[in-house]
Amino acid sequence: MRPLILHPDRLFPTDPSVRPIARRLYEAVAGLPIISPHGHTDPRWFAQDQPFGNASELLLTPDHYVFRMLYSQGISLEAIGLVPNGGGGTSVDPRAAWRILAENYTLFRGTPSRMWLDWVFAEAFGLTVQLEAASADLYYDTITDALATEAFRPRALYDRFNIEVITTTESPLDDLAHHAAILAENDRTDGWKGRVLTAYRPDPVIDPQFDGFRDNLRKLSDLTGEDAFDYKGYLAAHRQRRAFFASMGATSTDHGHPTAATADLTDAEAQALFARVTADSVSDADAELFRAHMLTVMAGMSVEDGMVMQIHPGAYRNHNASLFTRFGRDKGADIPMATEYVHALRPLLSRYGNEANLTIILFTLDETSYARELAPLAGHYPALKLGPAWWFHDSPEGMRRFRNQMTETAGFYNTVGFNDDTRAFLSIPARHDVARRIDCGFLAQWVAEHRMEEWEAAELAIDLSYTLAKKAYKL
Amino acid sequence: MRPLILHPDRLFPTDPSVRPIARRLYEAVAGLPIISPHGHTDPRWFAQDQPFGNASELLLTPDHYVFRMLYSQGISLEAIGLVPNGGGGTSVDPRAAWRILAENYTLFRGTPSRMWLDWVFAEAFGLTVQLEAASADLYYDTITDALATEAFRPRALYDRFNIEVITTTESPLDDLAHHAAILAENDRTDGWKGRVLTAYRPDPVIDPQFDGFRDNLRKLSDLTGEDAFDYKGYLAAHRQRRAFFASMGATSTDHGHPTAATADLTDAEAQALFARVTADSVSDADAELFRAHMLTVMAGMSVEDGMVMQIHPGAYRNHNASLFTRFGRDKGADIPMATEYVHALRPLLSRYGNEANLTIILFTLDETSYARELAPLAGHYPALKLGPAWWFHDSPEGMRRFRNQMTETAGFYNTVGFNDDTRAFLSIPARHDVARRIDCGFLAQWVAEHRMEEWEAAELAIDLSYTLAKKAYKL
Amino acid sequence: MRPLILHPDRLFPTDPSVRPIARRLYEAVAGLPIISPHGHTDPRWFAQDQPFGNASELLLTPDHYVFRMLYSQGISLEAIGLVPNGGGGTSVDPRAAWRILAENYTLFRGTPSRMWLDWVFAEAFGLTVQLEAASADLYYDTITDALATEAFRPRALYDRFNIEVITTTESPLDDLAHHAAILAENDRTDGWKGRVLTAYRPDPVIDPQFDGFRDNLRKLSDLTGEDAFDYKGYLAAHRQRRAFFASMGATSTDHGHPTAATADLTDAEAQALFARVTADSVSDADAELFRAHMLTVMAGMSVEDGMVMQIHPGAYRNHNASLFTRFGRDKGADIPMATEYVHALRPLLSRYGNEANLTIILFTLDETSYARELAPLAGHYPALKLGPAWWFHDSPEGMRRFRNQMTETAGFYNTVGFNDDTRAFLSIPARHDVARRIDCGFLAQWVAEHRMEEWEAAELAIDLSYTLAKKAYKL
Repeated sequence: MRPLILHPDRLFPTDPSVRPIARRLYEAVAGLPIISPHGHTDPRWFAQDQPFGNASELLLTPDHYVFRMLYSQGISLEAIGLVPNGGGGTSVDPRAAWRILAENYTLFRGTPSRMWLDWVFAEAFGLTVQLEAASADLYYDTITDALATEAFRPRALYDRFNIEVITTTESPLDDLAHHAAILAENDRTDGWKGRVLTAYRPDPVIDPQFDGFRDNLRKLSDLTGEDAFDYKGYLAAHRQRRAFFASMGATSTDHGHPTAATADLTDAEAQALFARVTADSVSDADAELFRAHMLTVMAGMSVEDGMVMQIHPGAYRNHNASLFTRFGRDKGADIPMATEYVHALRPLLSRYGNEANLTIILFTLDETSYARELAPLAGHYPALKLGPAWWFHDSPEGMRRFRNQMTETAGFYNTVGFNDDTRAFLSIPARHDVARRIDCGFLAQWVAEHRMEEWEAAELAIDLSYTLAKKAYKL
Repeated sequence: MRPLILHPDRLFPTDPSVRPIARRLYEAVAGLPIISPHGHTDPRWFAQDQPFGNASELLLTPDHYVFRMLYSQGISLEAIGLVPNGGGGTSVDPRAAWRILAENYTLFRGTPSRMWLDWVFAEAFGLTVQLEAASADLYYDTITDALATEAFRPRALYDRFNIEVITTTESPLDDLAHHAAILAENDRTDGWKGRVLTAYRPDPVIDPQFDGFRDNLRKLSDLTGEDAFDYKGYLAAHRQRRAFFASMGATSTDHGHPTAATADLTDAEAQALFARVTADSVSDADAELFRAHMLTVMAGMSVEDGMVMQIHPGAYRNHNASLFTRFGRDKGADIPMATEYVHALRPLLSRYGNEANLTIILFTLDETSYARELAPLAGHYPALKLGPAWWFHDSPEGMRRFRNQMTETAGFYNTVGFNDDTRAFLSIPARHDVARRIDCGFLAQWVAEHRMEEWEAAELAIDLSYTLAKKAYKL
Repeated sequence: MRPLILHPDRLFPTDPSVRPIARRLYEAVAGLPIISPHGHTDPRWFAQDQPFGNASELLLTPDHYVFRMLYSQGISLEAIGLVPNGGGGTSVDPRAAWRILAENYTLFRGTPSRMWLDWVFAEAFGLTVQLEAASADLYYDTITDALATEAFRPRALYDRFNIEVITTTESPLDDLAHHAAILAENDRTDGWKGRVLTAYRPDPVIDPQFDGFRDNLRKLSDLTGEDAFDYKGYLAAHRQRRAFFASMGATSTDHGHPTAATADLTDAEAQALFARVTADSVSDADAELFRAHMLTVMAGMSVEDGMVMQIHPGAYRNHNASLFTRFGRDKGADIPMATEYVHALRPLLSRYGNEANLTIILFTLDETSYARELAPLAGHYPALKLGPAWWFHDSPEGMRRFRNQMTETAGFYNTVGFNDDTRAFLSIPARHDVARRIDCGFLAQWVAEHRMEEWEAAELAIDLSYTLAKKAYKL
């Protein structure tokens, strides 16, 4: 079996005149606490602190980054333990599923998944050989055994990972019971002190094409006592739920739309549109216009209540129709699309872009907009900040392209540091570590080119690793 | 005269901590046989093994990469010996044409053409000084004299270049007589053993806007005995010709469409559309829809007969209207266009994308789709693989961008190695050599960043140089 | 206070095997005269040679690169001395405005503005400490005092900066009085010999959506004696003003359109369209079509009179509606847009693209078109040349992307060297210096990769720094 080595210089520039600078910058930020202001971990983990299951349940079957790659090479999802819709559990032995991953681990060469997994294997579980067919059982047993111990419970990992705060993402219809339980725990004198915040993600009650949209509005009415089928009641219900989320610690909202379109309708137009999108059938154009209008409405509510607004546009969800029919959402078939921002954001920015107290954090899956559209917009509008390289671009080369293409026009201070945006809890330190290494390498390169002094880079390294995220998200 | 030097370290990373790794990786792949699974050499060369003509006929007038650059700086095509339509040959002395190239060779600084030509000059013809005005005649004579010798016949060059297999591209209307002659030669005990395969390129009978489309259908009817003006007969004729091509050794089809649009019509819709596109005049929309539908049909036939399907979309052909009128096709005026894939490919992929036994190799001229669309699609769909950096991007920087932007999301194993896609036979080893150098340099960089071990890079170098192409094209 | 250091190796590659080559190349071009063939300095400066005002008036309030960044972080434009429309001057103390810049100078880390300003501080004003709160007054006094001296008059700076020729940009309605004054001065035996040319920028009389378009046509009629509301008279007026500009030394025209659309209408179509766009209200489509048609008309006039044609497409002007209402144009809110060239330029190129005596210099704000569209177009059409990395891309990384993505397909000789395109006069040497450093670093890298010989790179360095601009603009 081959040794598994996480080299201390990994991801640093190779140039001998640059690497030592990167090392020095990184040394000062490697140990900073993790601010995780946006992601998809499950608050239940921290509320109930139950052990995770076996290696496959933890690291393989829930991670569509991982199984999409196996699938792309002809391995069926069933073979690794995924369950088709309506199926009542899998008959696949999790150890057998793990072996498939091990036998095909060469497929991940060069991918961020490989880097994150290797960190989890080496740093979280202490494994010292590479994952391959020969080490599959060693891996499976080591990981599964560890997960049964106290040290691998969610709260213990949170503490060990040096997380200062982590944010989950919930629907307005969520009762936030887990967050309430965590807050109660926080309040106990000898209780666990981890901070697990929620974020207000209203897509299920804003997107007329969301599964169960009208049911969701009914639930929203029930929850709030407002008539969510009446436009004014609908807005009041949003305000009420936002206030509830804020009272539970939320500092941000999040909006995952197919495009970046915004609109700023008159009340009369909005009411008429709302009547149409809450009817039996909705046209694509009406759905798009309503989503667009609601982004501007949400920005207005953020001006009122101070919640930071995140926009995540540009994914074609569930591109693989037959896979979606069989397995449902989040199966690795969401594909980025070209996304236009200049015209799309203008209605919202014309209305609220000059508000210095509003923060809109914009993400993109379309790197072509970095230098062309997003950096110029963020380098001008007080309300607009740029989220880090997102999703497939949350990778060493992706982050380098982000800094290379954003920095000269937007500067560093119109960006908001790093967030991991993941449900793979164990990979969170690895992801932040990659970001810190890449940012330190980037800064070191510019120091070596005499574009800034090393003391400036050292300040920036801390800002990018820690301070900017904390400040932008008001944490 | 200045010396002509092909430095052994050319195109390797300059970083002293990376270059030695690149050298080691390259050393192990430099001598591997050439797999050339897609290109446009003329099978007649290998069937008849006649000598090539003079230096200008071989290297200047047929190569639109070369003469487009001269043309862009105001040199007329007539001056270098190209013949306008209907003209009966050129009165230009080929030596004079060659002198024009020599005098303007500085224009090629920094271009891949310069690199390929210098390889041909130095390695194929043994020239030791740079091409410039002063060396024009030396070059012309050296090359022209060599071409008259046995060692420069097509088969001798094939053997000397260490080509294992080369694929040409033919219309379904081609009788493949040259390929038959080569197969017969292969079968002779002491015959030449070179493998020259064909690929099925049905654009002339699929694209309703192809010159002579209806004539082509008539010929297709004649060839097959099917009524190619009847939709069912038309499909049967395709099946028959595909079977014939396969019987002659073809393992792949190739489709050069203006866009990546696919469609999946019902039989009734397809029949009605076919009636319209085979009529006297065809609308742009109908032509586009028929091409789109036929890509899906061809994928279906590939599922049946196992032929690998290549798609080459995104060129605006013959952009220069007056040049096209005077000189015809392939005169350096084909210009890449922005190309959308996410919506375009969905009909085909929804129908056949999950077929693990189907291989669709997709090329693009639009690098913006690398990280955004193509890598995510290929990193998910079992049927989809990514062709190498194509055409203008078949260049050192173009290949680097390809690897940089594709690898993290698609991995290496959803790509298919290198192909040269050229009709410039003598440049084929140079092109493969450039690709091997760039890939080894790319891998060396990642080794030096500790993103993989050197033994992994060594495996990958062989895969990218040889194995992946052989496997993907079933050679 | 921290020292301000302009390191002699700044912006060179850091690789120890490349940097010495870059140094050698740069040494030979650092002192070459500046050719500034396109920009927006004020000819009045050179005609009247009056002193500039204080530090803020010179460097802060007119430079939207600088104040947009402050604004993006919540600093109001009023606070730094900008005056809303209709306001009669500012009550802000320029020293107080300067202090705001000083206190927030960290925002500029990593931006080209920081690099240009630091050059102006260190090289033009001899400052030896960094700009920060503690040095704000020292800076303000040093700069303001210097500006009152003879050595900082516009002509003295022109001479000191080693400018060989500088081009401004004027409307056809301009009487070019300042240029006339400069020419008269040039003619005096002991007069100042600086060359300050104009360029013909007809947007105000070509774009039907330009503020005051019909008034402008009235003025054009008055100036020329032609009826500029009649299409033939309108064209004659253009010819007359172009001839006047040429007689005053202009060698170029410039066209700033929202898109790159061109059209080639018949006379009858053009006359009918002209009647519509000169009427009371104009549709967006008619305005676009007229601009498109006029680009082709202007190209035709350039074939006649030999003026070089520049096209600057792709900016969404005045994106921030409320800021525009309050402060007007050029306030940092012009945002680049995706720009299509392949279809857009075809009408013009079909008509005039094969004219070897015509030079069209094309700029873009959309880097995605570099390798995909512009390099292939310029690598084919004799009339087309590529302007340098423009605007936000006039930056170290922007220039590197330009060379990286353009060179392999367009070559170096279809580009036209550098131009600064600025109204910030003092930054001009800094901008040319950045371009020379980046180009030398780029060439050094390719030498070190053995893609060209060092003597070839040395020739190219001079071409890119000096010769190409001079030749392309016929200076």
